[in-house]
Amino acid sequence: MPSVNRGGVNIYYETYGKGAPIVFLHPFSTSGYIWTFQTLSFARTNQCVVIDERGHGRSDKPQKGYAMKEMAADVVAVLDTLKINKSVFVGNSIGGMITMQLNVDAPERVAGNVIVSSGTNLGAGMPPEAAQAFQKDLVGAFSGLIDGAISAKTKREQPAVVDLIKSFFLVDDNFPKHVFLAAMQDPNGVFNWNISDRLKDIKKPTLVLAGDEDQATPVAANKFLADNIPGAQLKVIKEVGHFYEVERPGDFNTDLQQFLKQVAA
Amino acid sequence: MPSVNRGGVNIYYETYGKGAPIVFLHPFSTSGYIWTFQTLSFARTNQCVVIDERGHGRSDKPQKGYAMKEMAADVVAVLDTLKINKSVFVGNSIGGMITMQLNVDAPERVAGNVIVSSGTNLGAGMPPEAAQAFQKDLVGAFSGLIDGAISAKTKREQPAVVDLIKSFFLVDDNFPKHVFLAAMQDPNGVFNWNISDRLKDIKKPTLVLAGDEDQATPVAANKFLADNIPGAQLKVIKEVGHFYEVERPGDFNTDLQQFLKQVAA
Repeated sequence: MPSVNRGGVNIYYETYGKGAPIVFLHPFSTSGYIWTFQTLSFARTNQCVVIDERGHGRSDKPQKGYAMKEMAADVVAVLDTLKINKSVFVGNSIGGMITMQLNVDAPERVAGNVIVSSGTNLGAGMPPEAAQAFQKDLVGAFSGLIDGAISAKTKREQPAVVDLIKSFFLVDDNFPKHVFLAAMQDPNGVFNWNISDRLKDIKKPTLVLAGDEDQATPVAANKFLADNIPGAQLKVIKEVGHFYEVERPGDFNTDLQQFLKQVAA
Repeated sequence: MPSVNRGGVNIYYETYGKGAPIVFLHPFSTSGYIWTFQTLSFARTNQCVVIDERGHGRSDKPQKGYAMKEMAADVVAVLDTLKINKSVFVGNSIGGMITMQLNVDAPERVAGNVIVSSGTNLGAGMPPEAAQAFQKDLVGAFSGLIDGAISAKTKREQPAVVDLIKSFFLVDDNFPKHVFLAAMQDPNGVFNWNISDRLKDIKKPTLVLAGDEDQATPVAANKFLADNIPGAQLKVIKEVGHFYEVERPGDFNTDLQQFLKQVAA
């Protein structure tokens, strides 16, 4: 399977199917695996592109370079390689942030956006003690964050989903600790990035999906996006946390299908 | 991500984690995606290797060459490349058949076997009309087979699992029709392969897992394996079909964990 090299960093991607393109962008610490229930299902009608973001999964994991602009440019490089002019972007968490950055940097490549449990200026909500806790006990602190980001229903009924989400960052081959620290410390990385004043410039159809039990990017953070992106819709999902696509994939796919119809109409 | 070239055919694999190796071998028409809830979870304690079998997913899809011996030799080539001496094999359906073939051809590479919904001499149970139906309407006939291979509970509660399993063979980029026909027609391929008289030679610890609602490889076909592989255990899972690992991944992982403990003891 192919990868594109941008500035010496190999970005792994997969593409399945033909039709209007959809690019899937996963959450921080995970990988394209999280879209297992979307990739092939939507590839029956669309070209589905799944990217492992730099630092994750099957892509290279450089020591530095985790500014959101870099991560968005990686996606553009994949689009260029695949000769995809425009795509719908489906981004969860940091994947949603990359999506928003793309709308600012390369709006001509965007057909529409599904932003799943994301936000901007997330670091502002993080007390200094939290940053210290991450430095001191990365795995412990991040495990706590993940615990608060999965719904009670998912924990009760789908232990394998919880296990998958934790394993993503407990397996160094998928997500090594240096990536976490480099991304956290990057002045334009996942926690410090703030695009609040540019949300008004996002002009493409946008759906924001938020799980009502997500403590990592709570409903309020997602409502802020929907309130500030012109014309954006917000849908709050009950009994879901930060990972709607894998916590309740059937319902997620129904919502995505409906959004694709709106964009095509 | 890497692949190994054997006789001109690239076999795609992924490896995560360190420790006692586990090789995961997927069902006919699917891909390594089906192990999403196992790969990273077990990579916390083991080296997990997921292979896309020839004709599937990210591996090459030659016009011919789908004898079970070829598919088993591909796995040995991956082991050689990774310098893995011995492994536990977890094989579902055709993946279980490859596992059994490996036990005959390269027993020194096997530490133990988990055979999930599989069988031998499957074609003997297939009426001639079925073969004709596949020739005439591949997608329709195979869809019918899949419908009978997923439990009522999975259909009711997990539409995305059903959708994933159907999509594997409806997306040509994952599983093109020529692979289906070539494998079906191969005199030593998935439907014609018969290892009944060699099961007695499988000497490694073996667990056979069978879903009680699986009409593709029914409980009787799996009981035949357990009855004829010396010392093999059979466990029948209620309200599960042909795809235990994705129909009920939490329980599957508990069973696999317990088997690994037995093998290590």
